[in-house]
Amino acid sequence: MAEPATATQAAAPVVALLKDELDIVIPTIRNLDFLEMWRPFFQPYHLIIVQDGDPSKTIKVPEGFDYELYNRNDINRILGPKASCISFKDSACRCFGYMVSKKKYIFTIDDDCFVAKDPSGKAINALEQHIKNLLSPSTPFFFNTLYDPFREGADFVRGYPFSLREGVPTAASHGLWLNIPDYDAPTQLVKPLERNTRYVDAVLTIPKGTLFPMCGMNLAFNRELIGPAMYFGLMGDGQPIGRYDDMWAGWCTKVICDHLGLGVKTGLPYIFHSKASNPFVNLRKEYKGIYWQEEIIPFFQQAVLPKDCTTVQKCYIELAKQVKEKLSKVDPYFDKLADAMVTWIEAWDELNPTGPVPNGKAA
Amino acid sequence: MAEPATATQAAAPVVALLKDELDIVIPTIRNLDFLEMWRPFFQPYHLIIVQDGDPSKTIKVPEGFDYELYNRNDINRILGPKASCISFKDSACRCFGYMVSKKKYIFTIDDDCFVAKDPSGKAINALEQHIKNLLSPSTPFFFNTLYDPFREGADFVRGYPFSLREGVPTAASHGLWLNIPDYDAPTQLVKPLERNTRYVDAVLTIPKGTLFPMCGMNLAFNRELIGPAMYFGLMGDGQPIGRYDDMWAGWCTKVICDHLGLGVKTGLPYIFHSKASNPFVNLRKEYKGIYWQEEIIPFFQQAVLPKDCTTVQKCYIELAKQVKEKLSKVDPYFDKLADAMVTWIEAWDELNPTGPVPNGKAA
Repeated sequence: MAEPATATQAAAPVVALLKDELDIVIPTIRNLDFLEMWRPFFQPYHLIIVQDGDPSKTIKVPEGFDYELYNRNDINRILGPKASCISFKDSACRCFGYMVSKKKYIFTIDDDCFVAKDPSGKAINALEQHIKNLLSPSTPFFFNTLYDPFREGADFVRGYPFSLREGVPTAASHGLWLNIPDYDAPTQLVKPLERNTRYVDAVLTIPKGTLFPMCGMNLAFNRELIGPAMYFGLMGDGQPIGRYDDMWAGWCTKVICDHLGLGVKTGLPYIFHSKASNPFVNLRKEYKGIYWQEEIIPFFQQAVLPKDCTTVQKCYIELAKQVKEKLSKVDPYFDKLADAMVTWIEAWDELNPTGPVPNGKAA
Repeated sequence: MAEPATATQAAAPVVALLKDELDIVIPTIRNLDFLEMWRPFFQPYHLIIVQDGDPSKTIKVPEGFDYELYNRNDINRILGPKASCISFKDSACRCFGYMVSKKKYIFTIDDDCFVAKDPSGKAINALEQHIKNLLSPSTPFFFNTLYDPFREGADFVRGYPFSLREGVPTAASHGLWLNIPDYDAPTQLVKPLERNTRYVDAVLTIPKGTLFPMCGMNLAFNRELIGPAMYFGLMGDGQPIGRYDDMWAGWCTKVICDHLGLGVKTGLPYIFHSKASNPFVNLRKEYKGIYWQEEIIPFFQQAVLPKDCTTVQKCYIELAKQVKEKLSKVDPYFDKLADAMVTWIEAWDELNPTGPVPNGKAA
């Protein structure tokens, strides 16, 4: 597991599940050579590339991939003044891709992520595992000690209530990383050489009422079920904070999933994360988040959504209201963020006018 | 993983951690030949054998083990009328061993459990892993996506609040089973051939507020922190139910740990579970539990302990009161069980008179 899979290892024939119902969203500032490695797994799918930074730069995409690409000029043109809710010079811009997609499922991956190998040396088709996670139910109300009861060779153990064995629909699948773990700047600084070599062969539902740090590096979700909650916030250019985009989306998503009775899974699949970002740069981006999160997390742990919040949009607008009320005292940034959350929903509804599924299949 | 480890594989030299602070509790009705396999790991420790069933029968213990053995006559003699709280003809009697122990830690294991092998073929020292789990903190307030942050090669991931990284003391360590999974009778009947072959290399804290099905087959706990909650209820002879002893203990333990800010871990270590119990017999024992648990689990999910419940004993007496109030309507059995819970605490305090640690070290 110390090396990514080779192109040959990754080249086994694959069945492309849900190929017309899933978009792969990639935020980037560079040529997408990393797609070569993913070709056998990704080529059947449509890609949405969100180009960050200088829009005059040309991003090269390897031959044979079906894609649409949006740069900052496109975002500004499509959203007009509402483009203010999409971050610039930060991979948080990826959420624009979620908004313009018309598919039921999204998989998003960073361009420094390669194909990992399982302990037998086999290349891991991360997308296929995410799809399996999303298509099987979640079990947020009671913990199953043999992990995902829907995996082959596993089931619910003795003492698991039968009334809960149907599970609930899965909204999100959070995948993990071999090699460079997703550490914060202080931990990167303290443990510069630590590599994740432990392949944990498990998928599990994060229990209801429990928050988790959602990483956007290797993430899939059901856009119809939870899309409007996957807003990656205001980061990067002109903002006091970075590297909390996915965390923000994760907190909001989990609170809304808990309220709506939807599931969030974590565990498999692994990708091979090749490049640790610069810890000094990260520290500058993160340091406010590191102390803000001490107040943000209790806020989300205590957040209660009223019963009449029956759609993701309504839940999200309500959360925005609570953010404004309760987090603005932490920093004026949260006042701005709360406004951006509302703008995001307005933009989402504008691009997805007849409800969340204009061109896709009904849930 | 289809076979248990051989004696040779298990015979690597071991360091016996906490050898004077831990008792191994084994309930049994037969000769303890299974200990041969465990010899390299268990021989340095003291065993408490609780002989179930006919007290006139002689249980053979392999040479060289240091043990004390209690049969039903001993239990009746030591507890007098309070012996009524200890189950007969059911492995629930094991909790008598927790009560008479004077050690800080307990490991309990069933006599049909053998040494499992890890994926490299190495014999797993289950006790050593339990001790590691118990000696390192738990993290019940926020989920860490790389699982136990205290394991070598792991840490807290980006977005994990720093204020929570100290963790809380670990009260219990719940180990798993390769080969025969711990299924209920209906699942055994439906999947008679299913074997657990998936070695999941993870230990994780069960989040606060989440209940789990605790299996007593391979379980360790800190007796000082949580001992009085580890009551295995009224099962077996004269009772309308069986195979819910460990479940009952698990629900009570988890609610009390959540209230007192203690942690419960599950995952590693695995043992090799050799023998599925008879599903028809199990069905007879379980069937009431299978529908009762549909009411019991919501009861425990909603149970709130008042702030003045600052010891395990106080928590447990309060839970007994709530069981009597709210579960007696399910079946008169719960009225009897609630009384037995109180008797159990009285007996515990009688045998452990100067607080939970008469001869051991302070916590």
